[in-house]
Amino acid sequence: MKILLTVSYDGTNYAGWQRQKNAYTVQEALENALSRVFGQNVTVIGAGRTDAGVHALAQKAMVTQCVDTKIPLEKIPYVINSFIGDDIRVAQAEAVPDGFHPLVHAVKKTYEYKIFSARFMNPLLRNYAYFTSRPLDIENMRQACAFFLGEHDFKAFYASGGHVKTTLRTIYDMKISEADGLVTISITGNGFLYNMVRIIAGTVLMVGEGKFKPEEVAAIIASCDRTRAGVTLPAAGLTMTDVVFDMNCGENCSFEQ
Amino acid sequence: MKILLTVSYDGTNYAGWQRQKNAYTVQEALENALSRVFGQNVTVIGAGRTDAGVHALAQKAMVTQCVDTKIPLEKIPYVINSFIGDDIRVAQAEAVPDGFHPLVHAVKKTYEYKIFSARFMNPLLRNYAYFTSRPLDIENMRQACAFFLGEHDFKAFYASGGHVKTTLRTIYDMKISEADGLVTISITGNGFLYNMVRIIAGTVLMVGEGKFKPEEVAAIIASCDRTRAGVTLPAAGLTMTDVVFDMNCGENCSFEQ
Repeated sequence: MKILLTVSYDGTNYAGWQRQKNAYTVQEALENALSRVFGQNVTVIGAGRTDAGVHALAQKAMVTQCVDTKIPLEKIPYVINSFIGDDIRVAQAEAVPDGFHPLVHAVKKTYEYKIFSARFMNPLLRNYAYFTSRPLDIENMRQACAFFLGEHDFKAFYASGGHVKTTLRTIYDMKISEADGLVTISITGNGFLYNMVRIIAGTVLMVGEGKFKPEEVAAIIASCDRTRAGVTLPAAGLTMTDVVFDMNCGENCSFEQ
Repeated sequence: MKILLTVSYDGTNYAGWQRQKNAYTVQEALENALSRVFGQNVTVIGAGRTDAGVHALAQKAMVTQCVDTKIPLEKIPYVINSFIGDDIRVAQAEAVPDGFHPLVHAVKKTYEYKIFSARFMNPLLRNYAYFTSRPLDIENMRQACAFFLGEHDFKAFYASGGHVKTTLRTIYDMKISEADGLVTISITGNGFLYNMVRIIAGTVLMVGEGKFKPEEVAAIIASCDRTRAGVTLPAAGLTMTDVVFDMNCGENCSFEQ
């Protein structure tokens, strides 16, 4: 049986998702717990590689090995959680068919970026939101979202360094909510380039601060020029909130292997 | 000039508000920063003594000494914040008249207790809410609130040990809000006994779980018997959110000196 886990984590104290040689990551913490639970060496493949300090409410992680366990599927999260720190919670375990791959078959991902706008930071939000003391024009930020929708070459929103097959991505949905100064940018797409969500959030923030007009976003995207887009906001404000899979994705299968 | 500060803090890494000999507290952190800012030994008196792990969004702290500073009042928070960790933020500094005392003249205080009800804990909330996997009847919790309103002897909601003049307290307002499984109990009173808010929250939680009927709260209060009331919920879910002062409080001046 191949198992897919739904995993939430507070990324504050981890060097990101992906296993590294000299730093402790969420993947390593999870693999250590799984290896104890299943009594064999276990590795996992995540649906996304979150950076250091980035959080997840529904990261998906497939156990690479077939595991032979007497623990019923619905009990597996409880057992794993008893072997892992309380900043990581496994919320679901499900069986996946042969050939399923969490990178290839992820056809939609949703991220949220949180910005707290007030005179001073709320210290309870310091690891979960970016702080600005500038007042934000939420209506302009909402208008800016519309320009990101659809398929675009997001080269202007891509941190150089990584190698990718294409910088084309499709944004299906993007919206802004606000409550008591906490602004949440929610964005759903078929995949995201390295730092793309944080650069989009930085660009939308600058629209909110009046540094860009909403309609300038169209020209920034069209420029394919990283220096035209906004700043890369810090990792702490970012949370991966959803991944949707489709085994029959065909040409919509993910670029991000 | 006597200065009153509005202070927010994440209590997770502190042994509470009140200065202690062998543990690091918010008061000590704040006094250390203030002593550096004002170039003299400075102590403060808080409007409430929050326990280890309890948070505050608007604790009030009066600088006990008269301070002679060239820093304009409105700049003082920025200077203090530059000398203190990011889990404490000073949001306001105001001058208070002679004779003002943050314990005596505090006539209303508001606390919030947060409970997260879901199949598994959200790890981002682990330091800020109590987790229960039981579904909660929010309507019954709302009905329970009504029985706490007004003046009562809250002996049944009082952790023994402390010495107090009276266990009479008045609750002015109490309400429940809920969003995505996060239940917030908000309670405003003229003062609270040691652990009183956490025991009230525990009792309201048990109403939500169906262990008490809402109307049983009246009998629990009337019993003056601690063993009849609910459990003391953990510190992490509690946040002090407001303090109202009245220099002309007369017989409404606080008991909690």
